[in-house]
Amino acid sequence: MIYFDNASTTKISKSSLEAYNLASESFYNPSALYEQAAEAKKEIEQARQFFLNYFKAPKNATFLFTGSATESNNAVLNSHITRKDKKYLISSGEHSSVYSTAKQFKDAGYNVVFLPLKKNGEVDIDALKNELDENVAFVSVIHVSNETGAINDIEEITKVIKNFNKNIIVHSDGVQAVGKINIDLKRLGVDYYTISAHKIHGPKGIGGLYIANPNKFKPFILGGGQEMGLRSGTENLPAIMGFKTALGETKLKDFSKHKKALLEELKGEYICLSGDNCVDNIISLGFKGVRGETILHILEDQGYLIGTGSACNSKAGVNRVVSLLAPKEYVEGAVRISFGEEVGVEDCRNLGRELTKAVKQYREKTRR
Amino acid sequence: MIYFDNASTTKISKSSLEAYNLASESFYNPSALYEQAAEAKKEIEQARQFFLNYFKAPKNATFLFTGSATESNNAVLNSHITRKDKKYLISSGEHSSVYSTAKQFKDAGYNVVFLPLKKNGEVDIDALKNELDENVAFVSVIHVSNETGAINDIEEITKVIKNFNKNIIVHSDGVQAVGKINIDLKRLGVDYYTISAHKIHGPKGIGGLYIANPNKFKPFILGGGQEMGLRSGTENLPAIMGFKTALGETKLKDFSKHKKALLEELKGEYICLSGDNCVDNIISLGFKGVRGETILHILEDQGYLIGTGSACNSKAGVNRVVSLLAPKEYVEGAVRISFGEEVGVEDCRNLGRELTKAVKQYREKTRR
Repeated sequence: MIYFDNASTTKISKSSLEAYNLASESFYNPSALYEQAAEAKKEIEQARQFFLNYFKAPKNATFLFTGSATESNNAVLNSHITRKDKKYLISSGEHSSVYSTAKQFKDAGYNVVFLPLKKNGEVDIDALKNELDENVAFVSVIHVSNETGAINDIEEITKVIKNFNKNIIVHSDGVQAVGKINIDLKRLGVDYYTISAHKIHGPKGIGGLYIANPNKFKPFILGGGQEMGLRSGTENLPAIMGFKTALGETKLKDFSKHKKALLEELKGEYICLSGDNCVDNIISLGFKGVRGETILHILEDQGYLIGTGSACNSKAGVNRVVSLLAPKEYVEGAVRISFGEEVGVEDCRNLGRELTKAVKQYREKTRR
Repeated sequence: MIYFDNASTTKISKSSLEAYNLASESFYNPSALYEQAAEAKKEIEQARQFFLNYFKAPKNATFLFTGSATESNNAVLNSHITRKDKKYLISSGEHSSVYSTAKQFKDAGYNVVFLPLKKNGEVDIDALKNELDENVAFVSVIHVSNETGAINDIEEITKVIKNFNKNIIVHSDGVQAVGKINIDLKRLGVDYYTISAHKIHGPKGIGGLYIANPNKFKPFILGGGQEMGLRSGTENLPAIMGFKTALGETKLKDFSKHKKALLEELKGEYICLSGDNCVDNIISLGFKGVRGETILHILEDQGYLIGTGSACNSKAGVNRVVSLLAPKEYVEGAVRISFGEEVGVEDCRNLGRELTKAVKQYREKTRR
């Protein structure tokens, strides 16, 4: 089996799992008062500093360990979508954890505006500029699209927003950006940045949230006051150490040859939603008049595991983000291919051939 | 070092950690569509069924895997404290994750009433009866106090409430009850029940939430619609399997001899807040005119790790629950001792002696 669904989740690395196991020995409650607990706490604080340094965070910023990137995204929106007289701008290309939360606020009567995407999958900055007015309090734009791999120019977006009004809070979901493109939080200038461990060969059940100004953040999960009072719940040292190890081992890898090889072998009526402004490890394709799920299963039989858009959208039937970008007749035939380190260029070429065959086979079958 | 702080957290068992490691191999996103993902999903559904059976849940109920018991408690309160014209009854003995959340709603103008405790640490059922009126929509009473070990008669409490108005939602935090007393959810009759893995030798970063009627629950964390749409975020199969293994190995153990041995060796002016209605594995003590934290450090030097009340309260200085139960001059000298399987009766006797010595030593020092 060759795994082409790395944007969905990745296998925890040997070293990350080892770090998890090692830290499990130091099981003491990091908020307790004896020495062993203080040691566990120290390891967490060192990990926090490691993350802040890694992402070149400015002074006074902090970084929280959360239960998932989904929790991080929910936390930010719940912290800042609080007044019905304010306006909240959310890109249409957000991950479902931002989108669904924003949608719930919109349905409850909050002034939430979903910003349109350009054909290349990026958020439309002109549309963003048009929506900026004195009521805007919060903007959320995903850094790298989990569906198409499109890269939003967060540095430019933050500049546009902060030049208009420096008090507008900017959040970016960086889950698919970590380990794929360079991230410099000082340059990006965002107020919040969300990351995840299990997309970079770390453990499941742990996410992160960068916070530029802790004073502006209203905690989402209350209780014992862990994480500087900003996120309660007994600290998960093993997962934090696994996350830290995974992040430390992340290397930017050039997947352009992989992408080229795959696309060279594709024939027939299809559309590629992942253009030049995209990370090379995610390729979103739409095939005319076929069902993506069926294609997935044909390829599975051939030894290739691919996705039909993000798992978070897979059950809804029609992919929300793909349907914004592709002509109607291509949407149902959407598949998402995402590379990992263990995938070779030749594997991608073979997958391209099998994908072309699978689509042809499907069409012949349904024609009969 | 002998560990007497098991109510704070426990060491993950060998078998639970093995289950975590084994399940890490099956790293696929359980919401993806290929066979390997479906297998991971099936394991989660089997685990869910295991939990429901273990706690004798009625039909139509469900059980969610969450990121922590703290999250579970936050989720329930946020789902049901929604209207300013309703009344919400919360026991004063709740864990900080319930208390702080309820307090925030109260501060925001919701009609939250904190029910008083009796001297033995149980919630005062007569006070509860007096507060019941047609506006009451929700009640939360902890099953076993994390501070004193006091057992609330949840079956009786639910009966009283549901006889008054069957539509009132009842929640109980069972974190300290699991593995300590028998739990039969059908008999308890609650609408929600919260549990945690790391208190029973399972992994950190995973909690559970029993839900009698999923239709009444408003999800707290939104996104990809995992966990039947009730709790979003990529499923954490390794932690779920670790949790399941830990629960399966839980055995009720009689700690009455441990408690007796410890108390027999205690001398001087102290108060024991853990009476006859308590689980035997938690003992809350208050020593007159000493600082609990100092006593903790003296004992640490002797090889005994104890707590000063729950970690969730340890930073606040004065323990909220203890200060409701103990005379003022005993509150600062509060310590919490909680037994685990590895602690012997003779260890408890020795701890009792050392504790008496430590208090004496402290008093002599401060007298000088």
